[in-house]
Amino acid sequence: MAAPPLSPLAPKSFPDMPSIDGVRIGTAAAGIKYKDRTDLMVMRFDRPAAVAGVLTRSHTASAPVDWCRTALPGGSARGLVVNSGNANAFTGVRGRQATEQTAAAAADVLGCQPEEILLASTGVIGEPLDAGAFSDILKKTAASAKPDCWPEAASAIMTTDTFPKYATRSASLGGVPVTINGIAKGSGMIAPDMATMLAFFVTDAPLAPAVLKRLLTTANDQAFNAITVDGDTSTSDTVLLFATGAAEARDAPGITLPSDRRLAGIRRALKDIMRDLAQQIVRDGEGASKFVTVTVTGAITKRSARRIAMAVANSPLVKTAIAGEDANWGRVVMAVGKAGEPADRDRLAIWFGDVQVAADGERHPSYDEALASAMMKRDAIDIRIDLGLGTGRFTAWTCDLTHGYISINADYRS
Amino acid sequence: MAAPPLSPLAPKSFPDMPSIDGVRIGTAAAGIKYKDRTDLMVMRFDRPAAVAGVLTRSHTASAPVDWCRTALPGGSARGLVVNSGNANAFTGVRGRQATEQTAAAAADVLGCQPEEILLASTGVIGEPLDAGAFSDILKKTAASAKPDCWPEAASAIMTTDTFPKYATRSASLGGVPVTINGIAKGSGMIAPDMATMLAFFVTDAPLAPAVLKRLLTTANDQAFNAITVDGDTSTSDTVLLFATGAAEARDAPGITLPSDRRLAGIRRALKDIMRDLAQQIVRDGEGASKFVTVTVTGAITKRSARRIAMAVANSPLVKTAIAGEDANWGRVVMAVGKAGEPADRDRLAIWFGDVQVAADGERHPSYDEALASAMMKRDAIDIRIDLGLGTGRFTAWTCDLTHGYISINADYRS
Repeated sequence: MAAPPLSPLAPKSFPDMPSIDGVRIGTAAAGIKYKDRTDLMVMRFDRPAAVAGVLTRSHTASAPVDWCRTALPGGSARGLVVNSGNANAFTGVRGRQATEQTAAAAADVLGCQPEEILLASTGVIGEPLDAGAFSDILKKTAASAKPDCWPEAASAIMTTDTFPKYATRSASLGGVPVTINGIAKGSGMIAPDMATMLAFFVTDAPLAPAVLKRLLTTANDQAFNAITVDGDTSTSDTVLLFATGAAEARDAPGITLPSDRRLAGIRRALKDIMRDLAQQIVRDGEGASKFVTVTVTGAITKRSARRIAMAVANSPLVKTAIAGEDANWGRVVMAVGKAGEPADRDRLAIWFGDVQVAADGERHPSYDEALASAMMKRDAIDIRIDLGLGTGRFTAWTCDLTHGYISINADYRS
Repeated sequence: MAAPPLSPLAPKSFPDMPSIDGVRIGTAAAGIKYKDRTDLMVMRFDRPAAVAGVLTRSHTASAPVDWCRTALPGGSARGLVVNSGNANAFTGVRGRQATEQTAAAAADVLGCQPEEILLASTGVIGEPLDAGAFSDILKKTAASAKPDCWPEAASAIMTTDTFPKYATRSASLGGVPVTINGIAKGSGMIAPDMATMLAFFVTDAPLAPAVLKRLLTTANDQAFNAITVDGDTSTSDTVLLFATGAAEARDAPGITLPSDRRLAGIRRALKDIMRDLAQQIVRDGEGASKFVTVTVTGAITKRSARRIAMAVANSPLVKTAIAGEDANWGRVVMAVGKAGEPADRDRLAIWFGDVQVAADGERHPSYDEALASAMMKRDAIDIRIDLGLGTGRFTAWTCDLTHGYISINADYRS
């Protein structure tokens, strides 16, 4: 399969990535599935890093997800090993053995327990992963890891992605500047209802695991859990947040309580960087030609607003209408109706951008087809739906459904 | 928009339709949206017919659905008026007025109360329906209705359908032969979670409304509620079952209790004809090139089996793999995992046709890619999933997701 062309929604520029004290990264072309491209990424922490994660809620989760579920409660990590090309999912006993073997090889180099190594794999499902075949290269890669490899790390975890996804933010913690770097991958099998995609964040802030967990879960609800490409949820979705604590050397305060008020800056920065990377995944959605923001207001609860936003964002008829630049707001009405959440047809109002198309349960009296159609030509489409029932609101991000999605997923054997 | 080409899954032949005593049908080209094709269908019953229905559970239901919801509890019908081209959905007060006006015009000709007229509309959402514009033609059509117009009736209610959908069955009621005729329409915005599509059935059997209701609801669960094309549920879904009772003249017994054991033959015939028409809708699914049967066994309950079958049948990644003739059973594993229902990855078994591809949570030891790929070349694909947990089972029908779906819904303005 030829590499797909760069997404038209790809960022115009990529950020300079600072290094984060206390973490080094190595990448390698291990030949796991792809030839002549990197498919292995190792992150190593000089001292044990605090860690927290959110994992897929799939009932057919991959072996590395099972591994993380066991390892994460320890709250401490010395390394992270990620491979692309093979998800090590639905691989039975051999799948578990492959995770044990990978963690043991990494622990051997890093001088730690296997349980201090986090794992993630992404790629084809159901193919046995031969961990022995890349143990040696894994050890070499871990041994030669360097601080400044963030773009390379983002590239090594790509599968059908057309561009690497990375971002950085800084924040103040007790007056001391700290940094958060993040990388993510994903462009198909993206649905938020159960969890998220592969994404890894590292900060030098000295934060305890319980603090990380609270920060991560809260930010994730409005980031990776607010996006969808195709409504299909991966067996491998994993988001991890590591804190090296290296900023302690610069007198940043160690934070052990999630309620600590000094977390405000970090909380804001983490939410911002997670949303940035989540939106990058949507911008690289398979076949995407439009970036779509669906905002629901006036629902009875936030949860209800979320379900309605996702019903709209996942509707094939809404998504194909957007691909066709068709201001077909009737399909938005349909999707609101099918969401199964409280909605009163006769209070419904809908906007495309700043053009109100529907009000009080019918077409807006001043509806202007030409104006609405012009709006649909844009790269970024905003759909706003007000239910007029309460104060619940939610914003979801998605892309359109095009011939490109079919080509990527049907025309070629994966 | 040019008429789409005939679905490759269309039936090779169409049945001869007998007439049903007590009902006459008229069709007309009323110019509601389409030019030069019939878009209006009137059914009239010589004597009041018993009637029962199931309606969309959409929270943005159309005005005709609201009308039926009010009229159906009466259990008695003298007429049915259906138009295509305009769904009269999300049309506010004017939508309700249009239903009142249409029912009044029909009642005027048929000499009955407006509440004895059932209504359905299908087509574009959000456009006001000008009932006054076709009142005269409606009256003429009702006045000139004839017994033998079933294929014409099926054609008149089509929108993006590429072939008319009709079927007939006979059954014995107390030793007397009775007939059920049915027509249906639908090819996009098809999802069963809340109800069904447009379908109308008439029998000459003398059955009370409560009997019809029970028969219809039971059969529907394994017919229109077991299909999906795109997971999008219409604002207009309506299934009505009428009984003229004319077979009473041939000494068929009148049935007033749903538990009457003489209903066995009719129950079987109704289930059969409803499933026939439901499958025809799938075979005319927008862009469909494969007819897909998804059977889930071994679930903890039937309800759980249904949700898993529907998660598989609605998964864009499963549907595009089938379009690509790719035996990508990993995507089936993914869809089972995301359904949110109890499933034990390590007990899961999957078959494509009679080729077992997965067993005990991994690839089947004797998996043969060539054999599985050969299976995928067929027009009809059977996917069977055994969860190994209980006795719950469900079968769903769907089609694949192709460039044709995108073309129909994105490349042309609807």
